[in-house]
Amino acid sequence: MAPTEFDLIDQFFSGMGASDHVLVGVGDDAAIIEMIDGWVLHVSTDTLTEGVHFLPDCSASDIAYRAVMTAASDLAAMGAAPRAMVLALSLPEPDTAWLEAFCTGLRAASADARLPLVGGDTTRGPLVITVTVMGATPADQCLLRSGAAPGERLCMSGTLGDAAAGLSLLRGELVATDPTDTAFLTARFLRPTARIPLGESLRGVATAAIDISDGLIADSTHLAKKSGVALQIDHRLLPRSTAFSAVVEPSQQLAYLLTGGDDYELLFTLPQSVQLPEGCTEIGRVMAGSGVSCDGMSAVGGYDHFGH
Amino acid sequence: MAPTEFDLIDQFFSGMGASDHVLVGVGDDAAIIEMIDGWVLHVSTDTLTEGVHFLPDCSASDIAYRAVMTAASDLAAMGAAPRAMVLALSLPEPDTAWLEAFCTGLRAASADARLPLVGGDTTRGPLVITVTVMGATPADQCLLRSGAAPGERLCMSGTLGDAAAGLSLLRGELVATDPTDTAFLTARFLRPTARIPLGESLRGVATAAIDISDGLIADSTHLAKKSGVALQIDHRLLPRSTAFSAVVEPSQQLAYLLTGGDDYELLFTLPQSVQLPEGCTEIGRVMAGSGVSCDGMSAVGGYDHFGH
Repeated sequence: MAPTEFDLIDQFFSGMGASDHVLVGVGDDAAIIEMIDGWVLHVSTDTLTEGVHFLPDCSASDIAYRAVMTAASDLAAMGAAPRAMVLALSLPEPDTAWLEAFCTGLRAASADARLPLVGGDTTRGPLVITVTVMGATPADQCLLRSGAAPGERLCMSGTLGDAAAGLSLLRGELVATDPTDTAFLTARFLRPTARIPLGESLRGVATAAIDISDGLIADSTHLAKKSGVALQIDHRLLPRSTAFSAVVEPSQQLAYLLTGGDDYELLFTLPQSVQLPEGCTEIGRVMAGSGVSCDGMSAVGGYDHFGH
Repeated sequence: MAPTEFDLIDQFFSGMGASDHVLVGVGDDAAIIEMIDGWVLHVSTDTLTEGVHFLPDCSASDIAYRAVMTAASDLAAMGAAPRAMVLALSLPEPDTAWLEAFCTGLRAASADARLPLVGGDTTRGPLVITVTVMGATPADQCLLRSGAAPGERLCMSGTLGDAAAGLSLLRGELVATDPTDTAFLTARFLRPTARIPLGESLRGVATAAIDISDGLIADSTHLAKKSGVALQIDHRLLPRSTAFSAVVEPSQQLAYLLTGGDDYELLFTLPQSVQLPEGCTEIGRVMAGSGVSCDGMSAVGGYDHFGH
C-alpha cells in the first residue's frame, strides 16, 4: 500500500517541532505557540517553485534549506526572535528518497534558524514549497523599513554578490579556476544564512532594516521609500568576498553587487553614535530626499519574478 | 509593460489587511500582529492544488473562498479567535481577470472569517494556493482533540454529507431534479463556512473538538485516538439537510454521511451537564476503549489525498 498523506507527514516531518515556546506541535487542528506578555507576533510567507526559485537539478536537501532560510531572513530583517514555522509542500508523488533528502535539509535549517516545524500540509501536485515563519519581538522594539533618518549610516552584513555569482557558476555563465571559490559561491546561493542573531542584536539599535533578497538597489529602494529618505551608496565600500573578487571580472562586479539578489544579508541604518556590529560594513549614508544613488548616479532595477 | 509581482500584490491584495490586532500589514519584511497578554498563538496551513482540491472549471472566486475557509476551519476547531492570514499564490501567469475574481472570493472570505490578509507571496508557476491562518485563545482555553472522556456526548454542528453530494453533482455522478437543491449542495462544497463563532463559544465548554474535513469516520477516529476513548455513532441521529435527503438515494446516504468530506462542520464532545448549542446535534457518545463504531459496527476509512 502506498503511504498516505498522513503517514508521509508523520514519518518525515517528525522530530523538528520541539521548543520551549511550542505548546502543541503537529497533530492537532492547529499548532499552539506560547507568546511572552508584551511581545508581538511577526509573520511572513515565502513560496518557491521549481524553475523560478531553484534549478531543476538542485538537491532536495538544498531546496529545503534554502526555502526555510529565505523565509527566516524576513524575521531577521524585523529583528524577531524565531518561534515556529509551518510548511506546505505540493509534490508530484510521494518519493521516499526525495523526501528523505528534503527532510535532511529541512532539519538542518530548522536547527540553524531556530524554527521548530509545527505544522504542515502535504499534497500531490507540481513541486511548490511554501514556508510561513513566525517570530516575536517586544511590542516597542520592532525593526521596520521605515525608521531611517537623514544623517545616519547605511550598513550591511557580510558580503555582496556572492549568491548571484554562485548562481552564474551553477548555470555555467561564469567559470572559476579554484574549486574552493566555486564551493563557497554556490553554497552562498544554495545554502543562504538568515542573519537571525544579528537581527535580534539590532533591535532597539538600528533605525530601519531590510534583507537583501532582490538585490542591493531594489531592496535599498524599498527602505528609502518606506523611510522617506534618500540613500547614497559608495560602490568602493561594498563588501566583496575573496572568492567573488577572484571569479567575477572587475568590469562585471558592479552589476553583481548592485542587482544580484539572494544574498540574504541585512541592510540597515544606524545612528552615528552607535558602533558598527562585527562583520558589518558601512556602505553609504542616509540623506534627506528620495531614491537611491550609487556614486552620485541614480539607480533603478532589481530582480522581479514576473519581469524576467 | 507587464505588471510586476509587486504591482500585482499591491493592486489586487490590498485593502483586506485591516483589523484592531494588525499593527503592520503588507509592505514590510513581515506583518506584525498584536497579542493579548496571557493568550497563545494558534497556527495552521493548508495548501490547495488544481485537480486535487478543486475542479479545473471552478471559478477563481470560489477557489479563493474555499482556500481561506478550509484553513479557517482549523482555527474554529481550536476555539481560536481569528487574527490574520497570509497567502502564498503560485499561478501560471498574471491573468488580470482571474486575479480579480480570485480577490473577490478572497475578500469575501477574509470578511466572513474575520481574517485580515497581512502578507503574501505571488510567484509564477503551476496553480497552488497556500493559506496560513493565525488565531488566538487564552492560554488555558485551548480546544484540543485530546480532552474527550467516557460518558460525554458526541455532537456536531450543521448537516453532514452535503459537500460530498455537491461534489458528486458537480462531477455529474448525481443528478438533482430541483435546481434549489443543486445550488445548496454545490455551495456547501464550493463555499464552505468555517464555524468560527461556534468554535469560540465552545472554548472552555467542549472537552475536545475537530473539524470534519476528511469525513466523519476519519475525523472522529483522529479525535478518539488523541483522546484515548471510543466513539459510538448512531447513524439515525446524523443530521441531514432536506436537499441531501432529496438528492441522495437512501441506499447511498450512509456512505456519504460517514465518508464524505469537505463539510467543515465541527465535531465535538460535551459533558452531560452542558446544553447543546443551537444548530448542533448529538450524534453519539464517548465510551471507554478505542476506535469508532457506527450502530455497533467498527468503522474505518476516510478521504486521503494520496490514497485516491
